[in-house]
Amino acid sequence: MEGKIETLWNEVRELNLGTSGELDRLDFPPTPLQFLRDFVSQNKPCIISNATHHWPALTRWTSDSYLTSALSSSHVSLHLTPHGRADALVPSPSSSSLCFASAHVQRTPFPEALRLITAAKNDASSFVAYAQQQNNCFPSEYSPLAADCDPHIQFATEALGCRPEAVNMWIGDERSTTSFHKDHYENLYAVVTGQKHFLLLPPTDVHRMYVREYPAAQYSYSPVTGEFELEMESPARSVPWSSVDPYPAPEDSSSSLSKFPLFFNGPKPFCCTINPGEMLYLPSMWFHHVRQSPDSRGRTIAVNYWYDMQFDIKYAYFNFLQSIQCPPIESQTLAETVQEDLDSDAPEKTEDE
Amino acid sequence: MEGKIETLWNEVRELNLGTSGELDRLDFPPTPLQFLRDFVSQNKPCIISNATHHWPALTRWTSDSYLTSALSSSHVSLHLTPHGRADALVPSPSSSSLCFASAHVQRTPFPEALRLITAAKNDASSFVAYAQQQNNCFPSEYSPLAADCDPHIQFATEALGCRPEAVNMWIGDERSTTSFHKDHYENLYAVVTGQKHFLLLPPTDVHRMYVREYPAAQYSYSPVTGEFELEMESPARSVPWSSVDPYPAPEDSSSSLSKFPLFFNGPKPFCCTINPGEMLYLPSMWFHHVRQSPDSRGRTIAVNYWYDMQFDIKYAYFNFLQSIQCPPIESQTLAETVQEDLDSDAPEKTEDE
Repeated sequence: MEGKIETLWNEVRELNLGTSGELDRLDFPPTPLQFLRDFVSQNKPCIISNATHHWPALTRWTSDSYLTSALSSSHVSLHLTPHGRADALVPSPSSSSLCFASAHVQRTPFPEALRLITAAKNDASSFVAYAQQQNNCFPSEYSPLAADCDPHIQFATEALGCRPEAVNMWIGDERSTTSFHKDHYENLYAVVTGQKHFLLLPPTDVHRMYVREYPAAQYSYSPVTGEFELEMESPARSVPWSSVDPYPAPEDSSSSLSKFPLFFNGPKPFCCTINPGEMLYLPSMWFHHVRQSPDSRGRTIAVNYWYDMQFDIKYAYFNFLQSIQCPPIESQTLAETVQEDLDSDAPEKTEDE
Repeated sequence: MEGKIETLWNEVRELNLGTSGELDRLDFPPTPLQFLRDFVSQNKPCIISNATHHWPALTRWTSDSYLTSALSSSHVSLHLTPHGRADALVPSPSSSSLCFASAHVQRTPFPEALRLITAAKNDASSFVAYAQQQNNCFPSEYSPLAADCDPHIQFATEALGCRPEAVNMWIGDERSTTSFHKDHYENLYAVVTGQKHFLLLPPTDVHRMYVREYPAAQYSYSPVTGEFELEMESPARSVPWSSVDPYPAPEDSSSSLSKFPLFFNGPKPFCCTINPGEMLYLPSMWFHHVRQSPDSRGRTIAVNYWYDMQFDIKYAYFNFLQSIQCPPIESQTLAETVQEDLDSDAPEKTEDE
């Protein structure tokens, strides 16, 4: 079975995605038909240049004073973590295994949020702040900025036959990263300032992600002590999540290789950097890992548009593939104690970029 | 593994295709975007009414004298078989197993071809004739009829971004059937006179088709003796083909059930009748079995349009699924001696409706 699954990884690249690890790049937004035919239908990502050149955001959002003035009376969702890794696997507070930790989220006046995102960097004892919330936060929390970018992406709305289900704002810096996961949405991800760096794997490569069930935990931050507590959720909840860190610390690289050989020895992930004015089409069900580089102010700002996906034959094939164990459990060499009862039907958390 | 594959059969129906066995029906041709989004991208069939109401063919081709006059000096490809089953499994002339038999094909003046299609019916000792050839025969052999129907299907050409790779003509009667197979094309199948009856299974159901390799054989017909000879092809060639006859003779029904339990006990095939003026969108890689009912003259005429398919993630998933043996070889109860070395890369014969 391992050989057959490996053939699938290679075949989807040789037939359709290419073997260079580079994504298709469009100089201008596609027509709705071209987008649907060449990308959505084929579940194939692309980078689109000049998709947002008409957005006032591209110039306005490079100015902190513009943002703080426009959002002077807005409250936004600010995610606080000790090290910038929200929705990530960290050592469990209650056992020797890993848990899935969600950030401490607080509604914060925007000017204060922006100050915290920046200020925290110079305070080693503190936290990493990331203004984001995957609940259609852009038109709600950031409504004063509505005129600065498009409420939906015209070619995508026409192609997919619906408006976006959610439009989300992301304001952070290089310390915030998002670990490998997938979403049940068609995603158009537009960078406004700074850069976003994506690693992408197609859904065919699900076994290379070592998705396992982890118990959910929640950070809470005390502004009084300036410290985080990590508590297991109660009632207990488990979250299927990728175990792979694609950028292990040098001292962990050989143990990572032995824990995740399918990831490190298989075809390399598709890799791209999205610059201001560019947009990534990230197809539904693709695994993605996101890092960011700040602009000269030390900030990365992006807006993403989530459109409903079709639960069609591609999704059914994915669930079938995921239901097959590879490599066989008995040959796994995972160092952590993890729950092995993969459940293909378990709804996956979809609240990440 | 069998349980997981069975889950796939059910899931693709529950999520996307429906469980009634009925196809989606459109009252009018879709827009290119609708066709691409709701059907091609989802690999989902549909029936389209009023798609060809503007074709002169719908009235003209009901007249034999019109056809023989227009094609008075044309030669067409006529397929002759003993029982109307071309590209079908029949007992091998050289062993006790089955072989894949292709029809005797002769280029015949059209008026004679039409006479043979009809006349043969009253001659029990004779043959079944079917005017067809899947090599873009419509614009070549039937060019005098070009103005009677569209050279391509506008909404499909726009959606798929290309003209059809082949447009094929089919003139036969109820004695000609086409056994279960799939094609590597997006297919738009328009009935002009009579009716076509399709049984359809999605690509997810490949194991239910019991595709096996069969040695190829060729009918040759002698007009002198009025008899067929069936000879194995030389050099030998093997063809992967479905072993399932969905309409076994009553005396064979219990042996069919025991030979093909996945077919007969699984979800029922999608079933439809296409009437004059209607069109079936038959997605690439769907297995289909075709019967026909004649009009009052005793004739069924259809034109189909083959568009190139995308060899994308859906195709890669299909090949992966097909590479998995289910049920395990050791539990198979096939009565015939067949070659079991399924090869997912073997190009499949794609010359059928």
